Amino acid sequence: MKLPQEVEIIEVCPRDGFQNIKTPIPAETKIEIIDKLVGCGFKWIEATSFVHPKAIPQMADAAQVLQTVKEKHAGKVSFIALAPNLFGAQRAIEAGADAITFVISASEKHNLENTKQTIEQSVAALTEVCKIKGDCKVRLAVATAFDCPFAGKVEPGQVISLIEAGLAAGADDIVLADTIGTAAPLQMEALLKPLTQKYSQLSFILHIHDTQGMGLANVVTALSLGVTRFETAAFGLGGCPFAPGAAGNIATEDLVNMLHKMDIGTGLNYEKILQVAHCIQAKLGIPPMGHLARIAACQG
Amino acid sequence: MKLPQEVEIIEVCPRDGFQNIKTPIPAETKIEIIDKLVGCGFKWIEATSFVHPKAIPQMADAAQVLQTVKEKHAGKVSFIALAPNLFGAQRAIEAGADAITFVISASEKHNLENTKQTIEQSVAALTEVCKIKGDCKVRLAVATAFDCPFAGKVEPGQVISLIEAGLAAGADDIVLADTIGTAAPLQMEALLKPLTQKYSQLSFILHIHDTQGMGLANVVTALSLGVTRFETAAFGLGGCPFAPGAAGNIATEDLVNMLHKMDIGTGLNYEKILQVAHCIQAKLGIPPMGHLARIAACQG
Repeated sequence: MKLPQEVEIIEVCPRDGFQNIKTPIPAETKIEIIDKLVGCGFKWIEATSFVHPKAIPQMADAAQVLQTVKEKHAGKVSFIALAPNLFGAQRAIEAGADAITFVISASEKHNLENTKQTIEQSVAALTEVCKIKGDCKVRLAVATAFDCPFAGKVEPGQVISLIEAGLAAGADDIVLADTIGTAAPLQMEALLKPLTQKYSQLSFILHIHDTQGMGLANVVTALSLGVTRFETAAFGLGGCPFAPGAAGNIATEDLVNMLHKMDIGTGLNYEKILQVAHCIQAKLGIPPMGHLARIAACQG
Repeated sequence: MKLPQEVEIIEVCPRDGFQNIKTPIPAETKIEIIDKLVGCGFKWIEATSFVHPKAIPQMADAAQVLQTVKEKHAGKVSFIALAPNLFGAQRAIEAGADAITFVISASEKHNLENTKQTIEQSVAALTEVCKIKGDCKVRLAVATAFDCPFAGKVEPGQVISLIEAGLAAGADDIVLADTIGTAAPLQMEALLKPLTQKYSQLSFILHIHDTQGMGLANVVTALSLGVTRFETAAFGLGGCPFAPGAAGNIATEDLVNMLHKMDIGTGLNYEKILQVAHCIQAKLGIPPMGHLARIAACQG
C-alpha cells in the first residue's frame, strides 16, 4: 500500500458540526471550543458560515465568532468561513477570514436547493468573490461530488466541468465533498483517479461524511491515490441541512487515530482532540458520535 | 483497485452478538431471528456457542437453539457453533453442528483469559476435536490475530505458528479475528499479505470488530489482497466478554451495502438484512448499532 508520510487535516466542526445543531449554542461556547481545537495543533479551522440567519439561525453570530478567534489566534492558525454567495463572502472577508469556502454543487438540483441559484449563477458569483478576495484564499467546495440526494449518481464529468469553471474564476483550492456520505471506495476511485491525474498541480481536499460507515475506507482509498488533505469534524458532528439522509462527518479523532496507527504524521495531538470531543458532548448535551467517543462513553 | 466479483458473508450475530447481551434472550426469540437470517440468503450462520453456562449464561440454551434451527433449515443453510474446548466441541457435534469454530488466541495472555488454557493445551484439545469431527468441519479461529488487549501488538509470526499448529491438528478452515477492533489497514496488510502468499491454497475468513471505525477500511484492504470471506453480525452486535474495549462486529447490512455499491456479489438480500437489524433492535430493546440502522433511527 503506497501511503503519504504526512496528511493535513482541516477541522470543520465549528462550521459543519454546529450548523446542524438545532439548539442555539452561545457564541462564547463556540469560541471556547475553537480555542481548544487550536490547542490540538490544527493549522486550518473552519470557524463559521456566513449564511442568511433565516436559513441557518445557528450561524447568526458568524462575524462575532470569526473576529474573536482571529484576534486570539492570529498568526498561529488560519480560519476559514463558508459562504454560499457574494454577500456572504463579502461579510467573511470583512470579518477577517483567511479563506472562504464557496460552495457550489456539481448537481444542479442540489445547488438550487442549497443556494437557490443555478450552477451558472453560483459560478458567476464565485468570479465576483475572486475579484474582491485580496489576501483571502478562495476554496471552491464541490458539493455532491459523488451522489446527489435529489438526482442520484453524479458523473465525474459534472465535477470536472465545475472545477474548470472554478479555476477559471480564480479559485485557489478545490474541496471535493461527499455531501451525503454514500460513495463507496470504488466510486471514490472513479472520481479521484482521473482528477489527480488531470490536475497534478492541485492538492485536492476531501470532505467525507460517514453516513454509511465507509468514511475511513474512502480515506484509505484516497490516500492510496495521493490525496493528502482531508476535512473532518471533532466528535463526528455535521451533516447538511439541505441534504436529506446526510449524517456526520468523519470524526477527526477517528481519522487521526487511524493515520497515526499507519505511521502517517498529522502534527496533531490525538489525546487533546479526544478531550475536545468529550467537551463538545458535555457542552452540547448530545449523544456520543464517532467511534472512539462512543466507545469511551460505553466504558466510562 | 483489484477486487473480487463475489464475497461470502458468514452471519455471526446469533453467537457473537447475543453472547454479549446481558439480559437473557428467550431461545424462541433467538430461533425467530435465525429464521429471519436464513431468509436473507446466508449459506453459513454461526448459531450459538457451546461454552460453560457459568462463563456465558446467555448461551446455556446452545443445544436447543442449534437442534431446532438445524431441523427447520437442514440442507438450506449450514450452522456453525463456537466451542472453546473439547467438551464444548463434543456437545456441538452431538447437537448437529455443520462446523465448529474452535477459538485459540495468538496471544498467550488472551488465550489464558479467554479459555483458561495455554495455547499448547488449546492446540492439543483442537487435535482431539479433529479426531472426533466426522462430517463436521473444524474452523480454527485465531483470536487476537492483530492486537491483544493484555499484551499489545501481536506479531505475524505468532499467528503463523498457530496456523501451522492448527493445520497440523487437522483444522479445515482458518478464521483471523481482530478481536478488539484496533488494527488499521496497514497492520491488516502486514499480516494478510504474507499469509495469503504463504497459504495460497487456503481461503482465510476475516472476522473484524468495528471498535474504532476502521472495519470497512480493513475489509477493502483485505479484498484488495484477495480475501473473499468475512464474518459480520446483523445490526453490528458483538464483542468479546473477555476482551476489554472490544465493540461490535461490522454490521452485516453496512458491509453488504458497501459491497453491492462496488458491484461485488454476496447472494444476499440487503433489504431483508436491514429488516432483521430493525427486528433485533425492537426485540432486544437496545440502542441502534451499525451505521445504517442508526441513520434509519434518526430518520424514523
